[in-house]
Amino acid sequence: MISVEEAEKIILDSMGTMGKTEVELAQASGHVLREDLQADRDLPPFNRSTFDGIAIASKAFREGTRTFAIQGTALAGSPRLSLDSREQCVEIMTGAPLPDEADCVVKIEDLKIENGKATVLDPDQAESGHGIHELGSDCSKGETLLKAGVTISPKEIAVAASIGKATVQVSTMPRIAIIATGDELVPVDSVPEPHQIRRSNDLTLATALNAAGYTSTTRLHLDDDPSEIEATVSKLLESEDVLILAGGISKGKRDYLPETLLNQGVDRKFQWVSQRPGKPLWFGTFQREHHDFPVFALPGNPVSCFTCLHRYVLPALDKWLARTPKAQTYAQLQEETAFHPPLSLFLPAFANFSSDGAYQATPVPFNTSGDFISVSKTDGFIELPKERTHFSKGQTFKFYPWVS
Amino acid sequence: MISVEEAEKIILDSMGTMGKTEVELAQASGHVLREDLQADRDLPPFNRSTFDGIAIASKAFREGTRTFAIQGTALAGSPRLSLDSREQCVEIMTGAPLPDEADCVVKIEDLKIENGKATVLDPDQAESGHGIHELGSDCSKGETLLKAGVTISPKEIAVAASIGKATVQVSTMPRIAIIATGDELVPVDSVPEPHQIRRSNDLTLATALNAAGYTSTTRLHLDDDPSEIEATVSKLLESEDVLILAGGISKGKRDYLPETLLNQGVDRKFQWVSQRPGKPLWFGTFQREHHDFPVFALPGNPVSCFTCLHRYVLPALDKWLARTPKAQTYAQLQEETAFHPPLSLFLPAFANFSSDGAYQATPVPFNTSGDFISVSKTDGFIELPKERTHFSKGQTFKFYPWVS
Repeated sequence: MISVEEAEKIILDSMGTMGKTEVELAQASGHVLREDLQADRDLPPFNRSTFDGIAIASKAFREGTRTFAIQGTALAGSPRLSLDSREQCVEIMTGAPLPDEADCVVKIEDLKIENGKATVLDPDQAESGHGIHELGSDCSKGETLLKAGVTISPKEIAVAASIGKATVQVSTMPRIAIIATGDELVPVDSVPEPHQIRRSNDLTLATALNAAGYTSTTRLHLDDDPSEIEATVSKLLESEDVLILAGGISKGKRDYLPETLLNQGVDRKFQWVSQRPGKPLWFGTFQREHHDFPVFALPGNPVSCFTCLHRYVLPALDKWLARTPKAQTYAQLQEETAFHPPLSLFLPAFANFSSDGAYQATPVPFNTSGDFISVSKTDGFIELPKERTHFSKGQTFKFYPWVS
Repeated sequence: MISVEEAEKIILDSMGTMGKTEVELAQASGHVLREDLQADRDLPPFNRSTFDGIAIASKAFREGTRTFAIQGTALAGSPRLSLDSREQCVEIMTGAPLPDEADCVVKIEDLKIENGKATVLDPDQAESGHGIHELGSDCSKGETLLKAGVTISPKEIAVAASIGKATVQVSTMPRIAIIATGDELVPVDSVPEPHQIRRSNDLTLATALNAAGYTSTTRLHLDDDPSEIEATVSKLLESEDVLILAGGISKGKRDYLPETLLNQGVDRKFQWVSQRPGKPLWFGTFQREHHDFPVFALPGNPVSCFTCLHRYVLPALDKWLARTPKAQTYAQLQEETAFHPPLSLFLPAFANFSSDGAYQATPVPFNTSGDFISVSKTDGFIELPKERTHFSKGQTFKFYPWVS
């Protein structure tokens, strides 16, 4: 039995780097960017007016001119004009290019306009540089604006669009097969016999993977039948990039998976981790065309399965896709907790921000690792290290939010 | 000019409640549940073994029996067995129903099994109730497990699947039209003239709406042409449930939108909010078949536009869809800040969890509300109230994370 930290390291060390592909920017949200993006020109690309008002030469104002003849109008989207003389001004709209020879925009609220002339009312608003979003002040041509590894979210879309990236290089999405095992499982829309339960793990895992940006998922169910398991696993090892199995990996008589996976050439890296829930966690890799692919065999209990997905599988996939690691979330434990077995404890908890800015995690009592109802009231789990048995209220620990 | 709080209240008060629709559970993630979900039977539906081991009557153990003849095997997914006598045991697998007359499961690690007999090695593991996830201990038949208003995420999927909800009632998704306006805007894949910029607002807004669960979006661009704007807005008011406009709503000569919206019968609720960025924010509603629909006209500057989406539009849509309001996020300001104008300040900031569990927001310097490059380095914005001019390091304020 190995520690959580050892298991995490073995998994992460086994993950190489996925290939790249090109996607349309409109489809890029959630993908991992695999190229640095540079500005294709200075931004803003011209001295841009930030107000509706008039553009003047501030020197004329300093030398006493208060009223300027309006020579024309600068509109957003129109080519740059030029001031004909210092006694004149150009009416200018927000987003329009500042005319040559002008160095200041006075906003409409600070003007009186009549008979084709504009009079400046507020002298403080007529200084050089006022009302101008200066050429190149956001970035210079060639400057790196986004780094490879970032997850593309709406704000990255805005940057990429503004520099003309209609398509972007991203990590290829792995094909993920999710296999729920167990004779006791029946379809969601059926009425189970008293000894049966409905299949929920595969749909839950698929939904969580999709929500985390891993959208290429297939779901299967296998009965506890060694030849069916062997045949299906064999096929999946040919076609899929990741296998995530739920159930059938402990020491039960019908836990055929560990043996099947070995028979099929999957290289077992570990089984049994000193954690609760999720002790029977099994991890291995298989080779295809000289590349390594991961197999995660998660415990079948829904809480164990969901917890292990967040603690191990999602970070592993993130590394595989070369995603810049997320910053660790920490939370303050809100209840004195004692736990004696020498195991790391993953404790589902409700989380909130206190109005003084602390992130707080309150464990929700739950029955067993089969009790998913209690977990649905939580926001993630707090991880209590195995080296200790008592955990005080107010102490801070790592917190893993559920994907939502 | 009204305050942020007044604007928020006017918007939220204008939002009614969207209708409902039925979706497949596998497609329900991100939707707002519109029915309470009850357990259709006790969960677990039987006394469920939590170990691989043997099921015994603990009374026999207390009375001295240590070795039990194995009468058979209880498998997950098989009907419940019954102990033939107190001298016997049933081999049992995790997830299998506890046999009648048995009240305890001793796990395989605490047993010696040979010649069809199992001997209990650890007396502490043979107490009544040990190793059993008791019938009905997670919930009772008829108990409400999920409440209407919850956003369906993977953990709600798990609950719904386990109680047989293959389809669920959710809020109807509104059809949202996003319209970027401005002659200066050119397509992302074009090479702009020096006075032009690429369209990014509409794609950014659409991506953010999609990421927030609002997946039915259409994007358009309109030039600053009053008759084109009038004709398009008129059509959209017939076909769409929400109009989000970006740009063309300030006091510029070519800001035709406010007038067009009024001409088209949109009831203006307010324009101008005492905030930076985003002062020109315009909001109204229109009627169709006796229902009210919202029109948000956001400022065209990308930072203003993105900020107003998060501060006003997303909470409004959440209320419309009857989504239970999210808990407010708070963060500790990490930099002494002074701001004198009597405006609420939305300050884009980098956010992190300190290792003692505080959520911290560090403002990122930025140029103007046109500077989207700086915003791409932030995680959201901190809201500094307009009643004050000085904000100390370490003080806590509301924080709005960007959708990602």
